[in-house]
Formats: sequence, C-alpha cells, structure tokens
Amino acid sequence: MIELFKKLKKVDEVLKELSQYLKTHITTVKLNISEALGHYLAEDVHAKIDVPYFNRSVVDGFAICSEDTFGASIHNPAILKIVRMEKPEFYELKRGEAVEVFTGSPLPRNADAVVMYEDVNIREDFIEVTRPVTPYSNISKRGEDFRKGELVLKKGIKLRPWDIAILASLGYRQVEVYKPKVALLCTGDELIELYEVNDILKLPYGKIINSTRYVIEGLLKEFGCEITYLGILPDDEEIIASTLRKVLPNHDLVVTIGGVSVGKRDLTFKAVLKLDPEYYCHGLAIRPGRPTSVAVINGKLIIMLSGFPVAALTGFEFLLRPILLKLMNAINELRPIVKGKLSRRINKPINVKALVRVKVYREDDNYIIEPLALTGSGVLSTLSESNGVIIIPEDIEGFDESSLVEVILTRYQ
Amino acid sequence: MIELFKKLKKVDEVLKELSQYLKTHITTVKLNISEALGHYLAEDVHAKIDVPYFNRSVVDGFAICSEDTFGASIHNPAILKIVRMEKPEFYELKRGEAVEVFTGSPLPRNADAVVMYEDVNIREDFIEVTRPVTPYSNISKRGEDFRKGELVLKKGIKLRPWDIAILASLGYRQVEVYKPKVALLCTGDELIELYEVNDILKLPYGKIINSTRYVIEGLLKEFGCEITYLGILPDDEEIIASTLRKVLPNHDLVVTIGGVSVGKRDLTFKAVLKLDPEYYCHGLAIRPGRPTSVAVINGKLIIMLSGFPVAALTGFEFLLRPILLKLMNAINELRPIVKGKLSRRINKPINVKALVRVKVYREDDNYIIEPLALTGSGVLSTLSESNGVIIIPEDIEGFDESSLVEVILTRYQ
Repeated sequence: MIELFKKLKKVDEVLKELSQYLKTHITTVKLNISEALGHYLAEDVHAKIDVPYFNRSVVDGFAICSEDTFGASIHNPAILKIVRMEKPEFYELKRGEAVEVFTGSPLPRNADAVVMYEDVNIREDFIEVTRPVTPYSNISKRGEDFRKGELVLKKGIKLRPWDIAILASLGYRQVEVYKPKVALLCTGDELIELYEVNDILKLPYGKIINSTRYVIEGLLKEFGCEITYLGILPDDEEIIASTLRKVLPNHDLVVTIGGVSVGKRDLTFKAVLKLDPEYYCHGLAIRPGRPTSVAVINGKLIIMLSGFPVAALTGFEFLLRPILLKLMNAINELRPIVKGKLSRRINKPINVKALVRVKVYREDDNYIIEPLALTGSGVLSTLSESNGVIIIPEDIEGFDESSLVEVILTRYQ
Repeated sequence: MIELFKKLKKVDEVLKELSQYLKTHITTVKLNISEALGHYLAEDVHAKIDVPYFNRSVVDGFAICSEDTFGASIHNPAILKIVRMEKPEFYELKRGEAVEVFTGSPLPRNADAVVMYEDVNIREDFIEVTRPVTPYSNISKRGEDFRKGELVLKKGIKLRPWDIAILASLGYRQVEVYKPKVALLCTGDELIELYEVNDILKLPYGKIINSTRYVIEGLLKEFGCEITYLGILPDDEEIIASTLRKVLPNHDLVVTIGGVSVGKRDLTFKAVLKLDPEYYCHGLAIRPGRPTSVAVINGKLIIMLSGFPVAALTGFEFLLRPILLKLMNAINELRPIVKGKLSRRINKPINVKALVRVKVYREDDNYIIEPLALTGSGVLSTLSESNGVIIIPEDIEGFDESSLVEVILTRYQ
C-alpha cells in the first residue's frame, strides 16, 4: 500500500528513456506573422527574392556613376549636372549626371554610388565632387540582406520582433509555428477554483484556491501551448482514468497537477497505471517535486506534477521544459544566466537535483546571490521575492559561502 | 536647408531632460489575471486574508497533538488511537488520538503536527510513534505564505506565472496593469505594406516591404502596449503634422518610423516642429540611429525612429525602452547579461553610444563573443543571426580582442 519512492530515478536518465517518444509530430498552426511573435517556428523559411531586390541609397544625396569622380580633387573637381525627377528609379543615368536620391530610394539605372550632401558643393544646376568616390559607396546592394533561395530562419527558432520583420520583408503573411495542445487537469479535494469564490473573506473552511494551476498555465503559455483546462477532478481514480482516456487522443500532451505523493492517495498515478502505459516513471530524484511522475500511453506523454506550486515549478523546469523544447525542435539557445557569489552556504541532500530560489543583485561589476528558504514547496511568496534559481546537480551536496555559482534569472528586463 | 547633426546630444542627457515629462499618468486597464501575464502591474497588491488561512498538512500521514509524543522512544512508543473521518477539518482532536490527513488537507482543531506514514508503525486501530514529534512538524501554518494586510506584489513588477498564482491565491480575479496606448506611424515613399503585396515576385520596382514596423510593433507588444497603427503616411509634412495633431490627445505616446535624416527630407521632424513642441531633441549621439529624435507636445512624447530596422532597434533600446519602463514605474530588474571574451577587436567612433550585434556561444564555462558587422543598419539578417548585443558607452573607442565584455542576450530560453 505504501510506496516510498526508495529508488528514485535521475531526471536525465528519465529524459533519455523518453527520447524515443519525443520524436512524434505535434500540433502546428499557420498564424498571421504578427500573431506568431514568441512562438517556435515549425518550418524552415527561405528567401523567395533578393532583399533588397534593387540597389538603393542608404543616405540622402546624389546618385552618380563613380567612374565620373575618379581622379577628382579640390583643384580638379568632378562637375556633375543635377537631373531632378519624381521617380529616379525609372531614369537611366547618363555619364556626367547626378540624380538627387533619399535614404531608402532605389537608384537610377547605371548609378553605382551615392555622395552625401555634406561631401559635395551644391551649385545651381550642378554639383562639385572633390574626391574620388568608390563604387558602391553609400548604397545597399541588391541581395545584401537576403539572397534568393537562402535559408533565412531555421525551424525551432523562437520568433522575436526582428524575425517577424524578416518574414514581412520576404513577403510571408503567415507562418507555421508550434502550438502544442496540452490538456491540463488538477486534483485535490481541498482545492476550489478562483471563479467559485465570490468573496475571499468567505472562503469555505478547509478550502484553498487552486493557484498552482496558474503557475503551470502561465509557463505553458510562455512556450506557446494551447491549453484545454479540465478543472479540478474529484479524488476518484476511476474518474481521473476515464478523463485521461478521453483527452489523450486529441492532445499532444497531458499535464496533471496534484494527486501524486509518497502516500496511499497517489490517485493520479494509480489512474494512469489503469490505462496500461507503455512507459512510466514514478517519482524523480529532484527537490522539491519528488512525486513528479511521467507515463506514456499510446505514444502520448502524461506529465504528473506536484500540487505544491514550487514543486510543480521544479517539475516543469526539470522535466516538462526539456520535453516541450524537444517536441518543438527548439534551437538550443543560451539561458539568461549570471554568475555571482553566494552570500551563504546552501546545503542539499546528495543524489537529488535541486532547484534553489535566490535573490541576486548587482554590486558594481559583481553579482551577489542570497539563497532564499529551501523549504516550503507550498509557499508562493518566495517565488515572487526571488529573481533567479540555482540548479544543483545530483552529485553535489551544496555550495560553500562565497563560491561562484550560476543563477538562471527568473525576472529580468 | 542642410542640417548636419553636428552637435549631437548624449542619450542619457536627453533622458534626464525628459524626466519631468515621464511622470504623467499613462493608460492602465483591469484585466482578468490570466490575461495579465507579461504585463507590468499598475497597483500595489495586498493580502486580504492569511494564506493559507488554516494550518494544513504538507505530507500524507496522521495529524496529532505533538505533546502526546514527548518522551516517546522505541521502548516506550506513544500509542495513538486512529480516528477515521471524511472531513477531518471539522473534527476536534482529543489527546491520545490521531487523524489520517493527506497532503494539503487542513488539520483537525487542536492538532499541531503531522507524522508521516513511514515514521510510524500502523496497527489495526492505532499507531505507534517511536520518537518525539516537534510542534508544527510537517504542517504549513496559517499565514505562512502571506499574512493579511501584507504587501504581496509591488506596482511596476512584470507579471510572471507565479505572480498570477499569487493573485489567484489571494482571491483577485482581475488586476490593474499598464497598457500604454501607442500610436505608430511610418513614412517613406519607397515603402509598401505587406498586405498590399499579393505576390512577392511581382513587388513593384523600387518598392520595399515595410518591415521595420514589425520590429517596433513586436518590441512594443513585449512591453504590453496597445498599438494604433496608422499606416504609411505620404512624404508630406502637412499630412504628417495633421495626423500627429489628431492622434496625440488620445494616446500616451506617439512613435514614428522613418522620415528623420540628416538631409533635407527630414519630414517627420519638420512636421513635429510645426506643432510647436515644448521640448525637442533632433538627433542623438548613438550608432546606428543618429537621426533618432524626440519631442514633447502638450506633455505627450513623440519618439522619432529611423526607418532602418537596426537603427530603429537601437533607438528603441537606448531611448524608447527606458521611457516605457519609467512611464510604467517598472521595478529595476537585472538584464539577461553574460560576460564573455571578444573573438576580435571592435572599433567605434568616440562620442557616440553604440549597439553592436554579436553572436555569443558557450565553451565549457566561458562565453565567446563574435562581433557581427557594425555596418548595415538596414540589414535585418544580422539581427536574426545574432543572439546578443554589446552596448559601448560614448567615451570608449572600442574593445580589444580578448577583452571581457558584457552581452545582453537577445535570444535565450
């Protein structure tokens, strides 16, 4: 009856065992490029044209044939006739002529350079150029930004504003991005949903508002997931099992919160076992979040997170996060890490991977790291007070005061 | 006619001069907490109740009176009678009794500790406790997370998932956040909007798709702004001026892209001058983005950015970003900075603040920083290739090869 998680597996071992299930196709959608910001790109994007697809000026000045200025000097300036027109791009520049152009303007044909206003003497009908101008001066050449056919954005990139601009400049109105369909369910008889509480001062005795849901929903949203929220299920194995059976086929992933524990009330895990998983791991060598579990049913993953917010966050960070990144073929990017000095020692048990909330601040060129309480996985307040986390591997028992350690920032600008 | 930006102001000087205009009230909205993710909080949030507002168990086991176990040992275990019930929270525990509770459950009245299953011997109707139990063992005390009246989330915080969870746990369904109303307009006769291009292969000669718009729109969205996009205005001072006049009263901020330059076609700036600004600065000592300008009309800011994407980004980073943060009373957070070694020297002119796109990668414990081309402010490709930027202050002429410098990450996970 009582299972003690005596032999907990390392999370990296579990991720390795899961890797064969992380090659499945997950949901992608075509979005208008403006809506795709922050999503992971699900296709390679190539340039269909040269960008720019004509030579253009990058300054305000006069488009010229550079050859006309070869040998020019103060004593022997090149004299070029100013030709004025509305649409210089349709004009064929003749030798000895100069056409006024503005920043961004396409050049007249035959022009191969632009001289800036401040580098010439402007007379009534002509300009004097007193120095030779190098070909291609002050112009952006056709294809300078992208060449036709070039791979421009790689699948798995997380789209930032300039990537959206690139898509626009190449004429893409829509783009295929990953939008994993995640079913999310909670268990816990002590929970009540926020929308059921009209007046917090009249919260029924013994109830707490389901807040862990928002930690996980928020993190899933930050990864571009589409969430089907199934609510708080009763503490009933059969209901949990039948709900899972129903939602598994039309979702990429199921995430459960609560109902996993070291005790006999390990309801969610028992419900999962009823569905005859082809793979499962019950409990992980992580802290907090020891009850975090995972199973695979018909090739679909069920990630079981603790009901306590900090433990759920740790399960997300160590297990769900790498799974989502793998499923979305995410390009391996750096993490927002700063290195700093610990203000006091951190202890942790051996053989578990730990996540420690910290407060990190800058003093001149150095970062000082103050560890917050290690305990209290049900305590949200330390999450809002912290601005970073330290991850301590299994084989280390902690860090001494003043050691240099890496902090992953959880708040930054 | 020709203005040469000869005496460009430092951006910090301009920000200081602007500071009196950054105290104005900007738009806030009440959002459902789930929609508030990523926004800047516009109010201080206090706890209206203790959280949790009862003592609860953090493990599965038996709730007891700790005093019953004082003096217990293997040879003299405390024997406690198991009382089983559906809703232990309504039971008044008597001395010598133990009530089974689960993770998260509220404790029966009078119980002050929980012993885990694995720490007791469970018999038919009673448990044996073989060690004294300290008061408050394995329980989360009332108010442990938040105490009634406590300031829980400060105005100006950028809401992350756990902050949303905190709001939920305190019974807040909605929250006030900043949503600056920004009017955005572009100028440039060479520009065409993406939606006007049905087939990129038939792009009219001399036209380029308005892509800088997406860089700035995306960045503004990442700051939670609501954008009124006014399109590409004709190169006509009068039209630009009348548009500005119209949109200024009902927006917090106006951002323009293009139409600022060193040349005579400095249309946007001239249009702004027509509106008789109480403050203006024409051009900034930054690179790229020298034409970046700012004006204040009736207390409202108009930020004029270059039409070139990288120059616009630099104007955003150096000028608009600190302005937005100030307007939203943003808490000063760390930036995602890594320190690494330059693979080659970077040169820059003195007296300008420069933004240099770089590629940074990790080699074991060190970061290697490879500067990308300094030129080409119209070139988007270096933005997608880079994953960070170096900011070089005015008084420095560059950094030598192998110097240790700080990179702000622009792509990270």
